[in-house]
Formats: sequence, structure tokens, C-alpha cells
Amino acid sequence: MPMYRESSIRSVLKTVSWRLFATLTTVAIVYAFTAKLNIALAIGGIEMVLKLVLYYLHERGWNYIHLGRKEIEPKVLWLTGLSGSGKSTIGEKLYNDLKGKGFKVEYLDGDRVRDIFPNTGFSKEERDRHVKRIGFLASMLEKNGVIVVASFISPYEESRQFVRSLCNNFVEIHLSTPLEECIKRDVKGLYARAIKGELRNFTGINDPYEEPLNPEIRIDTTNISVSEAVRKISKFV
Amino acid sequence: MPMYRESSIRSVLKTVSWRLFATLTTVAIVYAFTAKLNIALAIGGIEMVLKLVLYYLHERGWNYIHLGRKEIEPKVLWLTGLSGSGKSTIGEKLYNDLKGKGFKVEYLDGDRVRDIFPNTGFSKEERDRHVKRIGFLASMLEKNGVIVVASFISPYEESRQFVRSLCNNFVEIHLSTPLEECIKRDVKGLYARAIKGELRNFTGINDPYEEPLNPEIRIDTTNISVSEAVRKISKFV
Repeated sequence: MPMYRESSIRSVLKTVSWRLFATLTTVAIVYAFTAKLNIALAIGGIEMVLKLVLYYLHERGWNYIHLGRKEIEPKVLWLTGLSGSGKSTIGEKLYNDLKGKGFKVEYLDGDRVRDIFPNTGFSKEERDRHVKRIGFLASMLEKNGVIVVASFISPYEESRQFVRSLCNNFVEIHLSTPLEECIKRDVKGLYARAIKGELRNFTGINDPYEEPLNPEIRIDTTNISVSEAVRKISKFV
Repeated sequence: MPMYRESSIRSVLKTVSWRLFATLTTVAIVYAFTAKLNIALAIGGIEMVLKLVLYYLHERGWNYIHLGRKEIEPKVLWLTGLSGSGKSTIGEKLYNDLKGKGFKVEYLDGDRVRDIFPNTGFSKEERDRHVKRIGFLASMLEKNGVIVVASFISPYEESRQFVRSLCNNFVEIHLSTPLEECIKRDVKGLYARAIKGELRNFTGINDPYEEPLNPEIRIDTTNISVSEAVRKISKFV
């Protein structure tokens, strides 16, 4: 995504060239109608000065009209919840919707980040550091004007609080889908393996999930469509 | 840094309001000079249509004039070198210069990031993972239009290559200040401690520094001012 910069010289030259061009047109039209060059030039001269002032006033005036202007603060939309609670599905749709609306937005997903860093473990310490690092990344993006959608189990309250402290606008979205429902879904077959004892440190089975105390949003996805969930979250953007 | 969005309705309304305003001015001026309302209105009507077309052509024309227009691709300016080689000093000045020029730029510094994540170790494995994670962060910022200045010893070729592979425009800047000079400077007193054996895994003393094979820039800061070094790097932005 390249940055374009117009030097102020370019802006001044464009303004001058347009004013000359526009005023010459006025002079030509008036001359065509009146056949009097002195009147045409006088009108052109007045127009040139007057319109520079009027254009400025017009711009300032619109400044007070809020119709069609929206201010959006970048935010970190942090989806936390058990495996299978709907984080990635909702996160992806949320990301695509925001992108479709022309926002600068980045999507960070637990599984994808772990693909890039395959040695990240699942012990409490490693999870904490992982979540904190991702939080740091999210806060840097936010600081630079990017909305961040992050989908991470992030089971520990302390590391979520740490991420909150790094960000300016941290929106904690707790997908509170009950464990039974997540086990029923078991999209990746991981719960079955964890219950058999094949996976250690599996959140909800043999590792705790600390429920967020005061999340900005709480959604149980048991009886709600993806679109509905995304709509609820979009209200916060 | 808030994002502003103007809806297209707002732009259309502004265009229409300006054209009406501007043309009414022309009508008023012409009427003041000629005292003939029919001529004033006819000129206004022609002007309104003609200027909409001319403004468009004027904009398109400027599209082909490159004067005062610069395109800047975001980049990752990666400073690598021994402790004391000048990374942080040059990195900070580079960052401040770029920020002063109005660029979107972020500064990542080894020491500062380690302050936020105090448990990051200095073993080969931990260093590799640390550098790779920072590289991922840098590439995300770059992807979102931010120039990144990064100061990290980053002693291993493989992890630097990994970071290069994540970024679009990776500029590897090797501060090749010789070890003897760095030991002489010893700003933080770390070389003295490492030589006494008080520090393990200290790059240059009891841990290797793999010299970059094909860095974009190589600067020995022994006999060069900070400003000179920054100027050399700025040419790549």
C-alpha cells in the first residue's frame, strides 16, 4: 500500500492553474455574450479574487455540517473464548465486512500465527507470552491507524488485562458459548483427542479458561447466526 | 490517529453546493456590470455546465504532471550489528527525521521491546524466535503503510533471512563497526562484564555474530557522524 505525498508546491500550482483556467473561461463566456473585452476582463478580475475567498468560506462552512462525515477511532477487537466457540468464523466475517467498507483493518488469528511460529507451546507461561506479544503487535497496529480483529483463546485474565493496558481502544468480546456446545461442534476433532488424554493443556478439558470479568461484549453463539454476532460487534466500531 | 471518512453523498453535495454558489457569484458579477438579467443567467448556465467538464479535464491533465508528487513505498529499515555499533543512536535519529518529514513511521528497538517482555532470553533459540516475532510485527506494520525502523543485534543470518522473506521491502543495514571499536566505546559497560565472564551469550564475546552476506547498506560508524549515517540510509526511503 504505497503512500502518496503531494508537495505543497504542487497544491499551490494546481490551485493557481485551475483559477486561471476557470477565470479565463468566465472571461471568454462574458466576452462571447457582450463582445466587450473591458467588461469581460473586469468581471474576470473580480471573480478571481472573490472566488478564492468564497471557496475558503465554503470549505469552512462545510466544516460545521456533519452530514456524511464519520470519525472512526482505530480499535482492537479481541475475540476470546473456548476452541469451537466461533472466534475464527466471526473474526473472519468481521474482518471482511470492515475491509469491504474501506477500513484499514488487520486480522490476527491464533492458528495462523502459530503456523508461522510453530514452536509456540501451550503451557501457561508460553500462552501468556504469546498473547502478550500478539497484544503488543495489535497495539502497534492500532497506534498506526489500523483496526485489529484478533481471535485467540487467550484463557488467562492477567494476559488479557496486559493487552488491554497496551491498547487505546480495547474491545474485549467474550464468546461465551458453553463448553458442552463447543464439545458437540468439535470442528477440528481436538476435544475428542483431549478427552482421550492425547492432548495436554487443552483449554476447557485439562487447562482452565478464566471467564472475562467485564468484557465489552458477551455473545453466546449457540443460537445466533454469524451475521447477527458480527452485527452486534460492528456497533462498537 | 482517527480515520475520517467522507461519504460519497457528502462529496456530491459539496460539489453541487460549490457549483451553485460559484455560478450565482458569476451571475451576480455579470449582472452588476451589464444590468441585464437574461445575459447574466445565460452566462451562469453555460458556466455551470462548462466548468464541471473543465474541472474534470484539469484534474486528469494534472494526473500526467509528476511535478511535486512522490510515491513512497513503506519499508522495513533493519539495523543489525554488534552492541555498541550505533544501532539505537542511528535508529532514533532516522525515526525522528522520517517522522519530522510527515511519514508514518514506527521505531522498534531491541532494548525497549525487551523491557516490555523481560523474560526474553539470549540463547540462540530464544534470540531467533525474538527476532522472527519482531520481523512479523514489522511486516504487519509495513503491510499497513508504515515505515519501520528496527534496531536489533539480530546476530543470526537465518532469522534475518526469515524476516526478509516476510517483508515486501526489507532494507538490511549492517553496522559493521569492528568489535575492537565497540569494546572501546562500551557505552553500557556490558563488554567489560562479558569479558569478565559475568554475562553469557554475549554477541561478539561468547556468542557469534554472523555477518550479513548481502546487506543493502553497510556502514562502519568508526569515523562517521550520526547525521552522515542517517543520510546514507535516507537515500533508500
